[in-house]
Amino acid sequence: MYSNIKVIGFDADDTLWVNETYFRETEHKFAQLLSAYETENKIDQELFKKEMQNLDIYGYGVKGFVLSMVECALELSNHQISNKAIMEIINLGKEMIDKPVELLDHVETVLKSLNGKYRLILLTKGDLLDQERKLEKSGLSRYFHHIEVLSDKKESNYSNLLEHLEIEVSEFLMIGNSLKSDILPLVNIGAQAIHVPFHTTWAHEKVAPHEENDSYATVSSIKEVLNFL
Amino acid sequence: MYSNIKVIGFDADDTLWVNETYFRETEHKFAQLLSAYETENKIDQELFKKEMQNLDIYGYGVKGFVLSMVECALELSNHQISNKAIMEIINLGKEMIDKPVELLDHVETVLKSLNGKYRLILLTKGDLLDQERKLEKSGLSRYFHHIEVLSDKKESNYSNLLEHLEIEVSEFLMIGNSLKSDILPLVNIGAQAIHVPFHTTWAHEKVAPHEENDSYATVSSIKEVLNFL
Repeated sequence: MYSNIKVIGFDADDTLWVNETYFRETEHKFAQLLSAYETENKIDQELFKKEMQNLDIYGYGVKGFVLSMVECALELSNHQISNKAIMEIINLGKEMIDKPVELLDHVETVLKSLNGKYRLILLTKGDLLDQERKLEKSGLSRYFHHIEVLSDKKESNYSNLLEHLEIEVSEFLMIGNSLKSDILPLVNIGAQAIHVPFHTTWAHEKVAPHEENDSYATVSSIKEVLNFL
Repeated sequence: MYSNIKVIGFDADDTLWVNETYFRETEHKFAQLLSAYETENKIDQELFKKEMQNLDIYGYGVKGFVLSMVECALELSNHQISNKAIMEIINLGKEMIDKPVELLDHVETVLKSLNGKYRLILLTKGDLLDQERKLEKSGLSRYFHHIEVLSDKKESNYSNLLEHLEIEVSEFLMIGNSLKSDILPLVNIGAQAIHVPFHTTWAHEKVAPHEENDSYATVSSIKEVLNFL
């Protein structure tokens, strides 16, 4: 199934290191700050709605998330939220940015084993500075040729990237946790992909359950990708 | 002075299109929102201080600027600022992101003339989504091979980029308005650079006046770069 691979792209968040978990924790703290106004369930829903409204404007990453939390807090509280709570929301964002990087199991083993045999690239959406910092903290930067931040992970983003890097589509393999962002667009443009699910998926990254698809493999641990390479 | 050039990097903000002007306008509106608490001069100073405090965390771009404005408003008002004013600050940010792109004079003539003779790259710091959107709105994307967003524009950022793009340092020319970000780091690593000043410079981009330097040219209009190429 996998052949002629020369370049491998790795998604970063929730593929190499924990990320979504920190968003869930922050959302929980946000709901606590607003608990006088609404139930946690309603607050979660409204925050997600606000993030989706703002996605075209802010894109992915922590800073847009914080701005959406502030806006959501103003609205949900009917403009009654205290200045102190707003400062706490801003500080929740700073804490997220400052989190230590927690590598997922077997990541370093896999990268060490592929290093030198393939050109490895880190391919992420979100904020460049944030991702560079996480890569630095992770101690994994030596394994990567370079880091690419995409404003989105749709077919056209990948096609443009492969073109500008002069990589043959058929010689490219992507490894990631999001079916929607890391797997399906690649398979659709004729590249290869291996899906490594993470236990938590952001609602925006979820896709409808789909029929069996033999154009990519799903593995339960990243170390299994070595079986295909 | 300029020779063997194969690739030309263009800075975007205030080199191809107006940007700093919009920040100045927004700062003025921000000061008006806080006029009950402090003088405009003091507000300007405190906002700049806050931006510098947050620069390592947020990096460059509008979203970090908005978060710094919110934080500054909370502090300068001694946590008395109204929720309505905070919502207005957030909307100031959205308006900035939504601004039309105003090309600077002669930019398109220059790009058209260089197109095909050199590989042209857009090199910017700030937010990827924001810069992609501006490039799209500008109608200039056809001239550029691709866009690169750097988390900062220091010597190491440029060296890493040229290495990953496999561009010889001596064959690279950078054109931009910021001595600190677009010119001096390039000259220092052995690349070539042409300085095209813009009438407004952000305090953070200012460098001390320096002695005559014959390692780069300064031109008063971007169309003059054609005289060197």
